[in-house]
Amino acid sequence: MQSEKWTQLWLDYHKMYDGKDSWIIAVTGFDKENTIIANALKEFTKGIEALTGETVLGTSEVMNALTFTVSQNVTLSKESYRIEGSHDGILLEASDENGVIYGVFAILRQIACGKKALEVEEAKAPSNPLRMMNHWDNMDGSIERGYSGDSFFFEDEEIVINDRTTDYARFMASIGINAVVINNVNVKGAASYLITDRYFDKVKELSDIFEGYGIKLYMSLNFASPIEIGGLDTCDPLDKEVIAWWQGKMKEVYEHLPNFGGFLVKADSEGRPGPFTYGRTQADGANMLGDVIKPYGGIIIWRCFVYNCTQDWRDTKTDRARAGYDYFKDLDGAYHDNVVLQIKNGPMDFQIREPVSPLLGGLQHTNQMLEVQIAQEYTGHQIDLCYLIPLYKEVLDFHTHCCRGKDTVADVVSGRTMGNALGGMAAVINTGDDENWTGNDLAAANTYGFGRLSFDTELTSEEIAREWIALTFNLPEKETTLLCNMLLGSRETYEKYTSPLGIGWMVTPMGHYGPSVDGYEYSRWGTYHRADHLGIGVDRTDKGTGYAQQYYEENAKMYNDPAACPEELILFFHHLPYTYMLKTGKTLIQHIYDSHFEGEKEAEDLSADWDKLKNVIPAQAFDRVRKRFDLQLDNAKEWRDQVNSYFYRKSGIPDEKNRTIY
Amino acid sequence: MQSEKWTQLWLDYHKMYDGKDSWIIAVTGFDKENTIIANALKEFTKGIEALTGETVLGTSEVMNALTFTVSQNVTLSKESYRIEGSHDGILLEASDENGVIYGVFAILRQIACGKKALEVEEAKAPSNPLRMMNHWDNMDGSIERGYSGDSFFFEDEEIVINDRTTDYARFMASIGINAVVINNVNVKGAASYLITDRYFDKVKELSDIFEGYGIKLYMSLNFASPIEIGGLDTCDPLDKEVIAWWQGKMKEVYEHLPNFGGFLVKADSEGRPGPFTYGRTQADGANMLGDVIKPYGGIIIWRCFVYNCTQDWRDTKTDRARAGYDYFKDLDGAYHDNVVLQIKNGPMDFQIREPVSPLLGGLQHTNQMLEVQIAQEYTGHQIDLCYLIPLYKEVLDFHTHCCRGKDTVADVVSGRTMGNALGGMAAVINTGDDENWTGNDLAAANTYGFGRLSFDTELTSEEIAREWIALTFNLPEKETTLLCNMLLGSRETYEKYTSPLGIGWMVTPMGHYGPSVDGYEYSRWGTYHRADHLGIGVDRTDKGTGYAQQYYEENAKMYNDPAACPEELILFFHHLPYTYMLKTGKTLIQHIYDSHFEGEKEAEDLSADWDKLKNVIPAQAFDRVRKRFDLQLDNAKEWRDQVNSYFYRKSGIPDEKNRTIY
Repeated sequence: MQSEKWTQLWLDYHKMYDGKDSWIIAVTGFDKENTIIANALKEFTKGIEALTGETVLGTSEVMNALTFTVSQNVTLSKESYRIEGSHDGILLEASDENGVIYGVFAILRQIACGKKALEVEEAKAPSNPLRMMNHWDNMDGSIERGYSGDSFFFEDEEIVINDRTTDYARFMASIGINAVVINNVNVKGAASYLITDRYFDKVKELSDIFEGYGIKLYMSLNFASPIEIGGLDTCDPLDKEVIAWWQGKMKEVYEHLPNFGGFLVKADSEGRPGPFTYGRTQADGANMLGDVIKPYGGIIIWRCFVYNCTQDWRDTKTDRARAGYDYFKDLDGAYHDNVVLQIKNGPMDFQIREPVSPLLGGLQHTNQMLEVQIAQEYTGHQIDLCYLIPLYKEVLDFHTHCCRGKDTVADVVSGRTMGNALGGMAAVINTGDDENWTGNDLAAANTYGFGRLSFDTELTSEEIAREWIALTFNLPEKETTLLCNMLLGSRETYEKYTSPLGIGWMVTPMGHYGPSVDGYEYSRWGTYHRADHLGIGVDRTDKGTGYAQQYYEENAKMYNDPAACPEELILFFHHLPYTYMLKTGKTLIQHIYDSHFEGEKEAEDLSADWDKLKNVIPAQAFDRVRKRFDLQLDNAKEWRDQVNSYFYRKSGIPDEKNRTIY
Repeated sequence: MQSEKWTQLWLDYHKMYDGKDSWIIAVTGFDKENTIIANALKEFTKGIEALTGETVLGTSEVMNALTFTVSQNVTLSKESYRIEGSHDGILLEASDENGVIYGVFAILRQIACGKKALEVEEAKAPSNPLRMMNHWDNMDGSIERGYSGDSFFFEDEEIVINDRTTDYARFMASIGINAVVINNVNVKGAASYLITDRYFDKVKELSDIFEGYGIKLYMSLNFASPIEIGGLDTCDPLDKEVIAWWQGKMKEVYEHLPNFGGFLVKADSEGRPGPFTYGRTQADGANMLGDVIKPYGGIIIWRCFVYNCTQDWRDTKTDRARAGYDYFKDLDGAYHDNVVLQIKNGPMDFQIREPVSPLLGGLQHTNQMLEVQIAQEYTGHQIDLCYLIPLYKEVLDFHTHCCRGKDTVADVVSGRTMGNALGGMAAVINTGDDENWTGNDLAAANTYGFGRLSFDTELTSEEIAREWIALTFNLPEKETTLLCNMLLGSRETYEKYTSPLGIGWMVTPMGHYGPSVDGYEYSRWGTYHRADHLGIGVDRTDKGTGYAQQYYEENAKMYNDPAACPEELILFFHHLPYTYMLKTGKTLIQHIYDSHFEGEKEAEDLSADWDKLKNVIPAQAFDRVRKRFDLQLDNAKEWRDQVNSYFYRKSGIPDEKNRTIY
């Protein structure tokens, strides 16, 4: 299955020890012919043989062979598994096929991380019902916010299926992903026809491959389809003809794609059509689609990324951060059972530091899913190293105070808090057709990490990093620790040399790489820092835009008060003078200078640390990453100097340490 | 010849009076069959009939008819004409065919401006040998910095020839243009093949149409042609194979295009290849091409727009303004006779206010041509009204002090100062395939005006504006004065609401419409304002970059001293505190606030004035311009508010008049 055209990422198994045994496989309760089971056994065979050198002989009984027993246990919960090594083999129990494939990959992971095959042991149920990847792939082959080549799903308006498709599905299954949206949420051109005869056959083929690895295929939907492909003159969700059209369309979709998962919808957002066009609510739109897809067991995932993207920068009352809550909170409870709201982690748009969206847990009677971005749109374009798992962990661990106990975001989106059957985590993925899938080889840690975390939100950032390093590079302990530390500190490093203390955005408009302090300051996007000669920050307190009041009381109080507000977010919530004294005993302006000099220094350290790994990392991967660290260093210097110069020129307050500011 | 698909611009003659006479035509000395003469007579007939209602009967003698006598007079200088009305007709004398066609259009212009046919009288020799338009048209049909539709020369990599081509040639002849470069100076893709068999036939056809109106066709050249189309591995201008290749190529070009004018070359500029790549001088490159084209009478126009476009913004020593002089002055005298240096009016790039390039007149032994931009790249995209003739006049009237007397730019580029045979004026034209050719109907005043001014640099901005209004709209005196004043003040209005006092650039990067005060501040383009909390401006004095020292002593002294420097340029030459007192008794910062409030107010006035013309301007034209004034008003407000807010936020100094600043 290995191809020479692309890497096998974390599935390129390293020999861990030379085993002396042979294995046979025994399956009870499951159908060996089921494609998921068959694929799981294939993966077991491939993995064991590569990791231990031992041979898997098949399913006939052989004397003195170890037995890999796959056994159905219907008392286990959905998609969960239990693995246990013993002197005569390994037992894998699961209630369903997905549990089996996840169990197999758990066995291989444990061996790759240092256990002997007969020592493996774990029992896991997935933390989230939905563990989803969102591809922003366009049918012309381009990828919106893609930094690792073109799409491997689409080319010239056709669907591409090859070995890479299967490898992709294997990778996703190995980290617990069970849902994939194959096309960009901005559905345009040919992508509107994905739900027509023009593409059904190919989508079916793709869906079947996914299905073999326990993954449901989803698509992004064009809300204006009744007009664009249906020939109607409206897409009003309460219009009878529109509803009838959608009913027919869903019937057609499921006739061709019986295992189809459902649709992701970006409506009324950044120029996309939606229910607001017809004076309808977001619930009207989502529920109509939910109702028509319900007979087939499909679901509708409705994005909450709705805001006024033609704001006047002069207007300090309107606050983009408020928009999600303002648009969706009132309709809490109005959404039907098979509708899930997909909510970005922060109220803005994937900045390096944002508070957690107050919608998460703010909604108390609505299925909700957390959306994060693995694609490094605002976090370094897979040039700069930015291990994002710590960011996701912060979000998951955030106490919303929506109730006593079970009030973290992890609780809320898992369904634990309110007993929802639907919920989970979705990520905008960072893959492309680059040889190494993710441009920067180290960016694959985010791909891997998101999957693992969505499956098990209790895992720490370090555990995930160590797993990924072991699987990918199998380094000695010292180098593992070095690389692990590089990953773990990289998000803070990136934060230090970019925009300070939660204010975000000081990025080059459009491209979103490199600094432009005022780039979004006088724009229509609702993204302002409001810096003048005295201070900086957005007043989102009860005296400002009132955004802080969208949180439950404990958090609202905390954010409302500069003394209580976590300082890494202080400029998100408060407009403060440059002379404001932080808890570190530094003034705000000195913090800006210091953190930018530090951040750039840390980028230099990262770059130097990478060189220490030259002898243990495969040459091609080493060079790819080496080149990127050089670029990261340029970027860090540019950020440091532009941000420092900007604030020095504006405030006139010199750096206490007299370092060079231009 | 009138087409319904596009306007006839200033050649859409209005009936001026009802004449009672008939005309016959008598030609002596010239060949009536010559296409220029034939076209001239056709234009005379068309014009006279439309303007006076009188009939032109032809060349047979008719009793009692007036006679239009076209007579060769070899004592007149090249391209000049003399026209004189008398009781029995009009006499047109010229030494060559171009003089005839210019004389005909002079007759028609005088009648359109109010004279009776028999009263016309004028004797003119063109001020400049070369009066040239530069099209930045690409062969895919797009136009670099085009704001009035796509190219009418190119479409889908083919040359388009239709009635519009002829109309274009008529327009150009009517304003005295005798040279046109048809393709973009950035020669890429198919345009590199314009000098191959693939296009010769069509270029010849185009060239013939131009020739019929006294216009020579020129093309922009790809300096890397020996590599790109010749298959060589170098384009080193001193390489023998390269020279031989060019010799062959020129032979081929002139075999197909016997009347071809020559080439315009942008080399070593903004990523274009050039002699510097091979360690050669600009003169090496230009002279090599000059030598190989010389046998055919062709000329090489070499652009001086060479500078370091990857500057570090931190570097305050390097000064883009210096680059032209630094690169070209030392080689003064080294350029061959058939090479002309084309020099932009200012040292930067077509900003609303720049000092005159010190190369103009700074070069004392080199053919030189002034380049201006009619296309409103930095001056409002043909949305905002910006009559540019006053800007061109300022440049032409500038005393370079290169010698005693005859030291203005007009003197220098005409050839008067140093006795050059080659020289003149070139403009980046503002036309496209829009119905009205120039997007904004009023922008045609710049197209018209440039031609007229390049032919007669003594004309005033007001004379040109009145001519254009008379020819285009034929308004009553009151409305003529109103529109004339709108045009005459519009450049200053645009200047007031955009970047102050010669500093330039505070424009949205790439697009160049709308404000972005820091948009170019931290970029690689060498375009900085250096504003901090205390002041703004670039020190280009002897204590700064030394740019002011590139001028002759009188000007160098003037620019070097803030007290002597013209205040409209003071920030181009000096870094000054916001509290610096201007001669108006206002501080610098107050000037910034006042001028921006004034500029926006003037934009409102322009818009209101246009409404007063509703009844006298044709409805379609009125509406087109009306829409643009609405957009201009938005733009002016955005500039006013962003610039004022930027400087208030940075300086902390309030507006004395307490107006709203955000």
